[in-house]
Amino acid sequence: MENKKPNMDNPFIYMDHAATTFPRPSGVLDRMTARYRRMGCSPGRGGYDMAVEAGQYIHQVRQRIAAWFGAPDPDRVVFTSNATDALNLAISGMTRPGDHVVSTTLEHNSVLRPLYHLRQSGRIDYTLVEFDSRGIVTPEAIARAIRDHTRLVVINHASNVLGTVQPIAGIGQICRNRGIPLVIDTAQSAGFIPIDMESWHVSALAFTGHKALLGPTGTGGLVTLPDVRISPTRFGGTGVESLRLDQPEAFPHRLETGTLNLLGIIGLDEGLIFLETSGFRKTLQRKAALASQLRQGLAAIGGVTVYGTAPGPGHVPLVTCNIDGIHPSDAGMILDGDYGIAVRTGLHCAPLVHEAIGTSPGGAVRFSLGWNTTQKEVEQSIEAVKEMVSETSLS
Amino acid sequence: MENKKPNMDNPFIYMDHAATTFPRPSGVLDRMTARYRRMGCSPGRGGYDMAVEAGQYIHQVRQRIAAWFGAPDPDRVVFTSNATDALNLAISGMTRPGDHVVSTTLEHNSVLRPLYHLRQSGRIDYTLVEFDSRGIVTPEAIARAIRDHTRLVVINHASNVLGTVQPIAGIGQICRNRGIPLVIDTAQSAGFIPIDMESWHVSALAFTGHKALLGPTGTGGLVTLPDVRISPTRFGGTGVESLRLDQPEAFPHRLETGTLNLLGIIGLDEGLIFLETSGFRKTLQRKAALASQLRQGLAAIGGVTVYGTAPGPGHVPLVTCNIDGIHPSDAGMILDGDYGIAVRTGLHCAPLVHEAIGTSPGGAVRFSLGWNTTQKEVEQSIEAVKEMVSETSLS
Repeated sequence: MENKKPNMDNPFIYMDHAATTFPRPSGVLDRMTARYRRMGCSPGRGGYDMAVEAGQYIHQVRQRIAAWFGAPDPDRVVFTSNATDALNLAISGMTRPGDHVVSTTLEHNSVLRPLYHLRQSGRIDYTLVEFDSRGIVTPEAIARAIRDHTRLVVINHASNVLGTVQPIAGIGQICRNRGIPLVIDTAQSAGFIPIDMESWHVSALAFTGHKALLGPTGTGGLVTLPDVRISPTRFGGTGVESLRLDQPEAFPHRLETGTLNLLGIIGLDEGLIFLETSGFRKTLQRKAALASQLRQGLAAIGGVTVYGTAPGPGHVPLVTCNIDGIHPSDAGMILDGDYGIAVRTGLHCAPLVHEAIGTSPGGAVRFSLGWNTTQKEVEQSIEAVKEMVSETSLS
Repeated sequence: MENKKPNMDNPFIYMDHAATTFPRPSGVLDRMTARYRRMGCSPGRGGYDMAVEAGQYIHQVRQRIAAWFGAPDPDRVVFTSNATDALNLAISGMTRPGDHVVSTTLEHNSVLRPLYHLRQSGRIDYTLVEFDSRGIVTPEAIARAIRDHTRLVVINHASNVLGTVQPIAGIGQICRNRGIPLVIDTAQSAGFIPIDMESWHVSALAFTGHKALLGPTGTGGLVTLPDVRISPTRFGGTGVESLRLDQPEAFPHRLETGTLNLLGIIGLDEGLIFLETSGFRKTLQRKAALASQLRQGLAAIGGVTVYGTAPGPGHVPLVTCNIDGIHPSDAGMILDGDYGIAVRTGLHCAPLVHEAIGTSPGGAVRFSLGWNTTQKEVEQSIEAVKEMVSETSLS
């Protein structure tokens, strides 16, 4: 087979930003390492200057993150190792035995599995609301699922399979009216969509650092509004109130235990600074246009099915499709091997979405764009799929 | 006051390696960043070459860590965000309702607080064995505390306050005879003391990457022997078996969820490579000799009390003391401000040790040595304390 890579001077087209963004913007890793060389100790855990400085720096990062998400109290920004860790903390820490939880079939296993575990252990019950033909869970559908003993609503902000953005402000209004805390999973939306927890009435927000926020893997967090009651799920040293038998009451110590991932937090801070200084909203519009071009370009190819295309409140820049006659995992291997295009195939850890759109158990092929995706790469991706379709129909 | 910093060409003497080692050896951060630039994606979560390569690399790190600790199965090396995270996982995941746990008053809050939480929630009960006048918990003392329903023994390998090393092999033999899993906390020992889980009959080992293993903060893990039964405490995406409602059975996926801290794991790997190639055991002997010099030097100063000095099975290189007439937190500030020496003061998140040695609630002053500590720095530390004592007696 002759080499069909469409662009030999750029043989690697990374279309898996929804898993982890790659590469980081120039300078993010350099600045991260430089700062870590200078203050790579235990932040806030010693009385000497470097530890104090590192503790103050961490507080500044909390302030930046709080501002980013429209949260009023930086001490309510709690660092975790990823969004999954944050969602486990929110779901376990904000429910009590006998509670009912409302969530959706759009969720990632980072929500579905904690819920299932808590139900299996007899602690909670839950209802999963289905998304509509547009890939949206409406506020009305959430309202219908709420019962008298519903004590939590958990929903992802943007689907990691369909890319569809959920009407969080509308859902937040319903939750506020019913007095039920709303938790949102922003793994796919943070960095792509402006978020305002306070005006949307979002009680808790889980984020990850290593996707559109441009930080390294191993970073993430849970941000809560000041009135949110949440119990810790891990216990240990906090550097303060060491005589207490239990975790301190004050945030962030209540939910953070053991030494923080200072290296990763610096990297995340540098990613956020890059976003802030590089014209965040303008870049988003460009990414949305590129994703739209990819969505339409793929949908126009005969024999290609694109999912989640119906108009709605918007998309994050990812496009999921299947090609007639090619199993999605084969399609992924062909795209990587023959075209140098890295995509993510399979179920994307969101099995109920694929079940609903009829693509389970094989899944689908997901192209996801990032901060550095170019129009040329989008065009090459469309051309690659076109060629794959035509080769399949010839064989 | 004239400047008393004894060494103006090296004004910063870092004696807080037991909290976080600083700096990292030259090259560790550079090599970490270089590799992350090349493969900073989601390891093992995509079919494309870079994700596969990153997945294979992570497996190699698991192999290195398994070999480091004498564990037979690299898939039983599970990454966590720090030792506290690993200890929470071990204590929650290896106990069931009604179990009794044996631990010790030497423990850090990373063990004491999870145990307390589980007892408060009615799940387990536990006994804390006291250490003897040497700072040691003997196998016989552990044996006496074991009851019919004891299902776990948890002990730290080296005290983070006294530096004393516990007789793990002897305790392991008792646990094996009684069929009780033994969990050890190696936060202070890993990287200083050779460890052999299999021959010591250690069922589970918690480690952190950012101390004597020379990796960055945000790394650590739990290593278990193949026969250990342990339940997950976090649930979510694993990139495999996505249709399952619960966590996969196979390790490491059973206990690892969400995207791994690849950046930190690379840094930890580079720290381990540095230890392996720089003559690990020879360096240890030199550190032990320096710590011994510091211990004896401080103990010889009138008005200084050094804790944990009695002969025993050895020490990790840290020395904890108090100076008559100077509150430990003041001593820390004077050491930092006047002598450029960074120490850790207070309770060191190990309140019961300080209670037992009579230093609660103020705590003590801990000097802890690392890979790069020099004899000159040890001598300067002794001189600084001497001067502080003489100034105090003058005032």
